Amino acid sequence: MARVVITDHPWPDVDIERDILEAAGHRLIAGPQATPPAAFVEALVREHDPAAIMTCWAQVSAEAIGAPSDLRIVVRMGVGLDNIAIPAATQRGAWVTNVPDYCYEEVSDHAVALLLDLWRNVTAMDRDVKRGAWRPGAARARRVAEMTVGLVGYGRIGRATARKLRGFGCRLLVNSPSLLRDKADGDEVAPGVIVASLGVMQRECDAIVILAPLTAATHHMIDDRFIAALRRKPLLINVSRGAIVENEALVRGLDAGLIAGAGLDVVEGEPAAPTSVTAREDVIVTPHMAFSSDASLAELRRRCAQEVVRVLAGESPLHPCNRPVSAGGSSLGAGPGQRSS
Amino acid sequence: MARVVITDHPWPDVDIERDILEAAGHRLIAGPQATPPAAFVEALVREHDPAAIMTCWAQVSAEAIGAPSDLRIVVRMGVGLDNIAIPAATQRGAWVTNVPDYCYEEVSDHAVALLLDLWRNVTAMDRDVKRGAWRPGAARARRVAEMTVGLVGYGRIGRATARKLRGFGCRLLVNSPSLLRDKADGDEVAPGVIVASLGVMQRECDAIVILAPLTAATHHMIDDRFIAALRRKPLLINVSRGAIVENEALVRGLDAGLIAGAGLDVVEGEPAAPTSVTAREDVIVTPHMAFSSDASLAELRRRCAQEVVRVLAGESPLHPCNRPVSAGGSSLGAGPGQRSS
Repeated sequence: MARVVITDHPWPDVDIERDILEAAGHRLIAGPQATPPAAFVEALVREHDPAAIMTCWAQVSAEAIGAPSDLRIVVRMGVGLDNIAIPAATQRGAWVTNVPDYCYEEVSDHAVALLLDLWRNVTAMDRDVKRGAWRPGAARARRVAEMTVGLVGYGRIGRATARKLRGFGCRLLVNSPSLLRDKADGDEVAPGVIVASLGVMQRECDAIVILAPLTAATHHMIDDRFIAALRRKPLLINVSRGAIVENEALVRGLDAGLIAGAGLDVVEGEPAAPTSVTAREDVIVTPHMAFSSDASLAELRRRCAQEVVRVLAGESPLHPCNRPVSAGGSSLGAGPGQRSS
Repeated sequence: MARVVITDHPWPDVDIERDILEAAGHRLIAGPQATPPAAFVEALVREHDPAAIMTCWAQVSAEAIGAPSDLRIVVRMGVGLDNIAIPAATQRGAWVTNVPDYCYEEVSDHAVALLLDLWRNVTAMDRDVKRGAWRPGAARARRVAEMTVGLVGYGRIGRATARKLRGFGCRLLVNSPSLLRDKADGDEVAPGVIVASLGVMQRECDAIVILAPLTAATHHMIDDRFIAALRRKPLLINVSRGAIVENEALVRGLDAGLIAGAGLDVVEGEPAAPTSVTAREDVIVTPHMAFSSDASLAELRRRCAQEVVRVLAGESPLHPCNRPVSAGGSSLGAGPGQRSS
């Protein structure tokens, strides 16, 4: 019998997780639904001495990872790994895992939904109608087929987004560090999907969609300098991580007319995202839910609990994101599969 | 020199139309931006005795068509013909024309935008965030790939909608009277696009998208009886004409949980659409603007003015919707090209 701590669960109960863990003889201790601060997680871990930590959004600090007497695994219930102190886990011989492939349909659906919503003025016009107006002339809608869309990030989610946008006939530019290792500006990676540098995207795109992971290189990538180089007053869509976009730079870019509008599933500072961003009528915001659907959530929770059971039984995880030193390898730090959600 | 009356123009000015008409030696008399009542149009026509009437949304009644001394053409600045008394025009030898192919990209973009907005909870969650909440757990989002979508109407707009939805991996059922003349339930008309009766759609669809023209057969097609046969609590999308959906039946269907939500670009009674429909949080409404974009609107206005110039010069129109009796043929009544907008 081992103890498993789940730090937060933005779903109503932990029945799916508990059923799987208890069937394998383990005991689940659940933190709150809302994301607790790092110090809360550290205290929870010190109190219960778990062999496994499952986390959705809560920070799992080096201190939390260092506290248990025999920690085997930290499971990210999602894709992005930015809330886990991976080197600390690697160093003490604990696996870090995620679920790299569970929500690419949802996130790409959501990215296209935000994009179309803005281009077709749906949320803005619904708000107008609900205030009692009926002003078709106030709509500023676009024909998607005439747009150029830039995807920053071209992993599973980027490829699915490109596949979904292709039917609309718009021009698609894609960019990622790994793409640019093998390909040059202008190479076609799929029918109608063209590799482009960020500079080309800044000049030519009518929308830029952020699908890249949060790393040191992407942190505040969308800042005043990036925005100043935009030429076609694009929309900005972010379904990855809030901190890739500098909030105040976005606000300045919107005020200056360099950006036409934004569709954000993530905002730096969430869940207390600044109203200077969220209250704007030219910004539509969803509360970090792009990953979710009735289908994806049950799948996510089941697979994470099964990964814990697997590792606690002495097997290797299905989706390792590090190579723990005591497991025989050297540290890889932040491993593969770093996609948002 | 002939006089041309434009009954209404839901865009700020009539410069595009005037430039083209004046260059051909004609004079334009413009009605208001907002849709005037039929009696206003009748008075306007009696006052100015035009050879051509251009209309966007205003009713052009048999009386308005009968009044001028030498009426040659009534141009519908759009696709749907339900606001023009076509038999009266046919009888007195005037052409009725429309622009059948100008906005199928926009309307299909808009239909998919409304559908994705509802499935991904975008407008609802943005409203929640703007009220100060951040509740990812409140989202009820779906994975589009697992959905079955029914398209009622499979003309230009229906085919474009199917093309755009195909990339999402959802199952597509399509229905139209002309399809069912040649095809049977289950026939594949394009990759992944299957012909289905309305009964199959009612049983199997997670969303029903209305893209059919308003005719006697489609008027109040979505009524209590239609809704009672729905089995999968679908979304209802209408980007065609409001009167295809019976408002109070929709309200009852939503209240009874037979319909999950609605995305309406058109509502019976618009522009004074009933708040029993528009104020609901499970209904998103845009003010009859699916046809519009910066690209489509300029194209529409230019092509309509050019059609007037063509007919007033004695040529045949490019997009006839009737065969005027004095033009040598018999009445066709409502002609081809009856698609919404």
